[in-house]
Amino acid sequence: MKIPADVAARFNEGVLVAAIAQDAGNGQVLMMAWMNEEALTKTIETGRVTYWSRSRNQLWTKGESSGHLQKLVGLGYDCDGDALLLQVEQVGAACHTGERSCFFRDIEFGKEEL
Amino acid sequence: MKIPADVAARFNEGVLVAAIAQDAGNGQVLMMAWMNEEALTKTIETGRVTYWSRSRNQLWTKGESSGHLQKLVGLGYDCDGDALLLQVEQVGAACHTGERSCFFRDIEFGKEEL
Repeated sequence: MKIPADVAARFNEGVLVAAIAQDAGNGQVLMMAWMNEEALTKTIETGRVTYWSRSRNQLWTKGESSGHLQKLVGLGYDCDGDALLLQVEQVGAACHTGERSCFFRDIEFGKEEL
Repeated sequence: MKIPADVAARFNEGVLVAAIAQDAGNGQVLMMAWMNEEALTKTIETGRVTYWSRSRNQLWTKGESSGHLQKLVGLGYDCDGDALLLQVEQVGAACHTGERSCFFRDIEFGKEEL
């Protein structure tokens, strides 16, 4: 059993786990999506990142249609077992818009107040 | 109105938005927590990161008891408006365990299969 107890407990509660993909080369955060147990198991077994699509209600291997796959380089999990941090080698763009990262827009805030 | 329409739409649906905190200095992903509209507004207005605690059902200004606050340096949001990427200056440890990052444990996987 490669899935740690903390994370397995979340799956047993029927909870999806947040999966953050970070570029293993330069540290850029590329995207956040979701995994269930099947998605995480498939990711571990294949070394290619597979998420659970909440909108389509099915497994979603990143890049299987676009070719923009994510090769798994490292796999961390957080202190309460409800988030994963994937270190990946991203082929092409992570975002469906064609941007490298899904986080390509910023919110302005009052930096002058700091 | 500083909150972008995509993100505001999530709040209007009653959905919490995932907030990923990344060290603005070295790119380390520190933690993932949640924000509602009030938390995001307070974060923008004060420049100090405030989350929404799902377990305590209340606003939670990071570091208000521990002193381990997060100063907001940058604030991105993703293509579908349900995740935020916070660039922060982290005072002390982000994790309640005392670790710098909540993602201090790894899952082993079959790298040899790649």
